[in-house]
Amino acid sequence: MLLGRVIGTVWATRKDEMLEGMKFQIVRAVDLDYKPLNSFLVAVDSVGAGPGEIVLLAQGSSARLTWLTKDKPVDAVIMAIVDKLDVEIPIEEWETNLP
Amino acid sequence: MLLGRVIGTVWATRKDEMLEGMKFQIVRAVDLDYKPLNSFLVAVDSVGAGPGEIVLLAQGSSARLTWLTKDKPVDAVIMAIVDKLDVEIPIEEWETNLP
Amino acid sequence: MLLGRVIGTVWATRKDEMLEGMKFQIVRAVDLDYKPLNSFLVAVDSVGAGPGEIVLLAQGSSARLTWLTKDKPVDAVIMAIVDKLDVEIPIEEWETNLP
Amino acid sequence: MLLGRVIGTVWATRKDEMLEGMKFQIVRAVDLDYKPLNSFLVAVDSVGAGPGEIVLLAQGSSARLTWLTKDKPVDAVIMAIVDKLDVEIPIEEWETNLP
Amino acid sequence: MLLGRVIGTVWATRKDEMLEGMKFQIVRAVDLDYKPLNSFLVAVDSVGAGPGEIVLLAQGSSARLTWLTKDKPVDAVIMAIVDKLDVEIPIEEWETNLP
Repeated sequence: MLLGRVIGTVWATRKDEMLEGMKFQIVRAVDLDYKPLNSFLVAVDSVGAGPGEIVLLAQGSSARLTWLTKDKPVDAVIMAIVDKLDVEIPIEEWETNLP
Repeated sequence: MLLGRVIGTVWATRKDEMLEGMKFQIVRAVDLDYKPLNSFLVAVDSVGAGPGEIVLLAQGSSARLTWLTKDKPVDAVIMAIVDKLDVEIPIEEWETNLP
Repeated sequence: MLLGRVIGTVWATRKDEMLEGMKFQIVRAVDLDYKPLNSFLVAVDSVGAGPGEIVLLAQGSSARLTWLTKDKPVDAVIMAIVDKLDVEIPIEEWETNLP
Repeated sequence: MLLGRVIGTVWATRKDEMLEGMKFQIVRAVDLDYKPLNSFLVAVDSVGAGPGEIVLLAQGSSARLTWLTKDKPVDAVIMAIVDKLDVEIPIEEWETNLP
Repeated sequence: MLLGRVIGTVWATRKDEMLEGMKFQIVRAVDLDYKPLNSFLVAVDSVGAGPGEIVLLAQGSSARLTWLTKDKPVDAVIMAIVDKLDVEIPIEEWETNLP
């Protein structure tokens, strides 16, 4: 899954009729410090994520496996809202921890 | 979904017969200010998007879930025309908004 | 779909038996002026494309939806030969055409 | 499959209910010397991998083919823990080994 | 399909039980002169490719369509061993051959 942050919403009135009622969120990819990366995508929200929240995205056919997106023409879904990350092996301690 | 802009059309008379009647649009990826990014792809249009319009694309198997593309050998479909974007957390205000 | 140009052929006698009789074409990605981009892939040809021709490729599970590739272990197929591109919004005229 | 290293865990209480009980691991991509590459993703763990371990990830629809992830909205799964790599053709000996 | 070269093997005793008996090969991507590119992945071998051989890889759900990988949690498979490439339109002759 991709780690991202909800930064806004897409308004689209003309769309495939199967998409009625879905909320399309703009999600920017973030690093492990929640700093913005240089890419974003648009995802359907199945968990009620608000602007500013850190989320996980499932892409591809897996994006169609929530109750909201089943058999719909969408390829990205927010399926979890992140509370926190536990990074046990930060990149500065990489070498000392190698198996 | 990818955010893009319809910039033209592909003409192809010799093609898989299941593709008859489909319109193949050239879509350039855009950023959140609708500025052009350095990539494009060709997508089937299922919503009647015209040149210049900003659209959302679904890719992969999800591209086959519109009425027009079902079971067809296509991997990208325009499934929505964008009216506008509401960006609530612009990148300049990122830090002040972190959760 | 990806825009590319057929530049050659792969010979492979030892392969999964389901692939017998398929032609594997080498396709280089091209830009909208048919200039070569820095990537290529190998695709099954379902439409009889010859060397030098500009083609469209479907990738992923969609590559298995032509008569030739159904249920076969291939992930890219040539499904159309391009006659021409109509680019109505060239990148130099981008700003004057924004919606 | 992607080669990576488990470096931490994601905590997410608000999520699709089908995801209850799954452990979401943060996996950083590594090279053949287990040096960190500049990308990471979040994957469900189906094999009990601990922090610091080198693992293989399956992505896309294949990520849903373990006992744990069947029909779930996830697009990456840890399906093996790596004991060691046997690199028989290191990049320094590439030319002398060409077929 | 991706063009690559088998450069080694992954040893993994702890893995999803559906993966018993599969050989995981390390495959480095190569260009049309068989020079190494800067990426590699791990693929199941369904055709008996040995170290040093040039191969084709199918990725995604297509990787599960060989006899060996059916319904298994793997996302890349070696499905052909390359004998040779016939490049009819090398990049140096591109312009003179444009359609």
